Amino acid sequence: MSQMEPTDFVKEITKMSVDFDRWYTDVVRKAEMADYTPVRGCMVIRPYGYAIWENIQRAFDDMIKSSGHQNMYFPLLIPEELLMKEAEHVQGFTPEVAWVTRAGSHGELDQPLAIRPTSETIIGTIMRRYIHSYRDLPQLTNQWCNVLRWELRTRLFLRTAEFLWQEGHTFHASPEEARSEVDLILDYYRQIAEDWLAMPVLAGMKTDSEKFAGAVYSKSIEALMRDGLALQAGTSHYLGQNFATAYDIAFSGRDNQRQFCHTTSWGISTRLIGGLIMAHGDDSGLIMPPRIAPIQVVVVPIFRDQEGRDRIERFIAGWAPALSRAKVRYKVDWSERRPGEKYSEYELKGVPLRLEVGPRDVDANQVMVVSRLDRSKLALPVDALEERLPELLDSFHGALYQRALDFRTENSFEFTQLSELLAHFRDRSGLAWVDWCESPECEAQIKAETGGVTIRNFDPRGVAGTPCIVCGRPGRLRVVLARSY
Amino acid sequence: MSQMEPTDFVKEITKMSVDFDRWYTDVVRKAEMADYTPVRGCMVIRPYGYAIWENIQRAFDDMIKSSGHQNMYFPLLIPEELLMKEAEHVQGFTPEVAWVTRAGSHGELDQPLAIRPTSETIIGTIMRRYIHSYRDLPQLTNQWCNVLRWELRTRLFLRTAEFLWQEGHTFHASPEEARSEVDLILDYYRQIAEDWLAMPVLAGMKTDSEKFAGAVYSKSIEALMRDGLALQAGTSHYLGQNFATAYDIAFSGRDNQRQFCHTTSWGISTRLIGGLIMAHGDDSGLIMPPRIAPIQVVVVPIFRDQEGRDRIERFIAGWAPALSRAKVRYKVDWSERRPGEKYSEYELKGVPLRLEVGPRDVDANQVMVVSRLDRSKLALPVDALEERLPELLDSFHGALYQRALDFRTENSFEFTQLSELLAHFRDRSGLAWVDWCESPECEAQIKAETGGVTIRNFDPRGVAGTPCIVCGRPGRLRVVLARSY
Repeated sequence: MSQMEPTDFVKEITKMSVDFDRWYTDVVRKAEMADYTPVRGCMVIRPYGYAIWENIQRAFDDMIKSSGHQNMYFPLLIPEELLMKEAEHVQGFTPEVAWVTRAGSHGELDQPLAIRPTSETIIGTIMRRYIHSYRDLPQLTNQWCNVLRWELRTRLFLRTAEFLWQEGHTFHASPEEARSEVDLILDYYRQIAEDWLAMPVLAGMKTDSEKFAGAVYSKSIEALMRDGLALQAGTSHYLGQNFATAYDIAFSGRDNQRQFCHTTSWGISTRLIGGLIMAHGDDSGLIMPPRIAPIQVVVVPIFRDQEGRDRIERFIAGWAPALSRAKVRYKVDWSERRPGEKYSEYELKGVPLRLEVGPRDVDANQVMVVSRLDRSKLALPVDALEERLPELLDSFHGALYQRALDFRTENSFEFTQLSELLAHFRDRSGLAWVDWCESPECEAQIKAETGGVTIRNFDPRGVAGTPCIVCGRPGRLRVVLARSY
Repeated sequence: MSQMEPTDFVKEITKMSVDFDRWYTDVVRKAEMADYTPVRGCMVIRPYGYAIWENIQRAFDDMIKSSGHQNMYFPLLIPEELLMKEAEHVQGFTPEVAWVTRAGSHGELDQPLAIRPTSETIIGTIMRRYIHSYRDLPQLTNQWCNVLRWELRTRLFLRTAEFLWQEGHTFHASPEEARSEVDLILDYYRQIAEDWLAMPVLAGMKTDSEKFAGAVYSKSIEALMRDGLALQAGTSHYLGQNFATAYDIAFSGRDNQRQFCHTTSWGISTRLIGGLIMAHGDDSGLIMPPRIAPIQVVVVPIFRDQEGRDRIERFIAGWAPALSRAKVRYKVDWSERRPGEKYSEYELKGVPLRLEVGPRDVDANQVMVVSRLDRSKLALPVDALEERLPELLDSFHGALYQRALDFRTENSFEFTQLSELLAHFRDRSGLAWVDWCESPECEAQIKAETGGVTIRNFDPRGVAGTPCIVCGRPGRLRVVLARSY
């Protein structure tokens, strides 16, 4: 028997409670999500990880298409002089840019070409050709692609030189319309996080010091990971006329006056996969949100001999079509391993529901449904599978969301005294709500004195009730602080 | 009224019959498929072109997933020493490689990194880790991505430095299994071309001089464009153990002996879009194969005043849901342009069916269906739309395929005398079937004496009936010759 076992079946992982960072890397690699490569800073996304990305893509792509956005594809390479026109943007990104300086038999290039770290500059330069009058607006453009930002400290999915993302770039006639676009997309991101990944997020405004290089303002969704660190999981930027001015993206208005567009940009990336891993996992491995899980239900047949196997095979063949009709993504694992090994593997991979099917289940015309979340068991008559499995997956989503929300509530704190805030972050993590006077100096002081705690975001409409936690002047905003990835 | 017309409505194109190359560029740009960019060699794919690519992707992705292939994502950058291990491959690709030599604040890199021109080298290097025993095989891997091959002569979709494609890379325990994989995929490519793009192709073997750099052999599908030139539209390669040996991709067999894998690779790209344009267009512009057409049916309402418009709007609202139920991709064009202008635009864009809806159609409870192929008109009662439109789109596909097949038949020739072959290609094009002795010298002589006519491919089982057209020795293969893109 042992000869027939897959050779790669090494599923021991560090416990989350022992070492969160090692747990994360173990889970990502042993659940076959992603891995390191010989290319420094670059990862390989393996089938189980890539299938999650495909599911996220489909969900988000449907959303943006329903509101009139269109996919396009723009060049990977950006000539140096093009990249260099918007001053803040240049400052923000040049430290991370990889440069192509020679090509094939042509030798040295006259001008270096940047591999896109983001595409505002090249997309603006191209889209301006298609924008002449207000009748050509808005232009609602999106691109699914790879980008590269040179990084030496690699963390799979979270921080790699190359990553996959979508970048939206839209062009509008008025600031109001552009600002609405920023909010529309931010809400799509919230929906992706909460309704698809079961990951509660705080949607809000970034401070000036944390905004996108070249933006007027940036908004983000922020999620809390199970180690108490925050993760910025998506950003939506109002660029005002900054890029339109630098790249001459203009139109003639209803009054025939030439004016610059108001633009936005926004992105989510494969980083989201790192987010859902760290938002939901436990000591046994991943817990997959059902709506993006590559495998929602795994069927594990239990038998002793060929005769037993034949009987179970006929039994499963009787109701497996009902799973397809119910549009459940399922897999029957017929591999020659012990059931216990299979249980461990699919727990590691976070498959939401396991159906155990043994001889007594065949007798009773039922299956045993085991939840990855709490290992609760439920005997289900096979006739009920088509109706009940989708319901069980929906409740699983709800329970997983609630679990993450409860964790966030338990790890949310309020402070009015700087000393208490500093004491908290000396040995604890989580989210800290404080009031802030809006001065960059107070923001910087918190970051310096805590060794890296930052304002994640804030509700721009929110009025603070207490003095600024740093300087004691009137608080103007209620903000949420955390250490973050 | 003129004030309300889109500013970009310039649809004059060069006639195909006057200048095929200019017709092609005009159509691609004015139908808003793709365009040149400030980045030399790189194009922008606009929404109408990108939507075709998305439809091709979906069709092919479904095919390969149904036979157990899995999508992954591998690094864009390949360290120089990795790229350089398979000698023929190096020779074939280094003239086209773009090199990253410096990055951000890190300055010069120790080792240049190639932007992938294709990924055999990096994928082999990574996949070898997951292959230990015969039980880990086959590995059926695919990647959707961008690649870069330095080109200065650009032709939109057909020849650009950067392009989008899928590259499959599979790893097998036996040569037989790998060879079957090559054929399976070649047949998928044939299906994509014929059943989705309505483009008849010749599937066959490439000669040694035309095979992929590093392959044991390559197979291709070849289509005939309406200027009489052939287009290689997809390739599937048997790599034998060449890459496995160079990159040490080995496994222990059932006999516990360590041996090298047999590998394959295969790709189709955005070049296919250029292919369908040139296989189907006419003087009025594109003709879109319905199964991948972004818009299958355009509805053009005809009215004089607001009252007339209201009436037609209610009429269309009555049956538009039937189009959705029939899963027809349709668009109603309510823009404020004259119907004739809309007709030209959608003819240019090649939308298969146009529904003209005027006041008399409302009276008769019908629409007028106009085919892009022959401009034939058919009055259809609105109750019949749900059933008939899908049928009409299917017949459109069939007729478009037949038109391309007829064109190919009319432009296929047989030669047994070299002088006649040379005379033919002096002022004509098309496909020429000849017998060949299989010697590279004879192949080279044809290419030299015709100024570029090459053997496109051949049926490896085909036995020739006449002597080699060049040397007169016994013919061994019946091959098809053409000038090509």
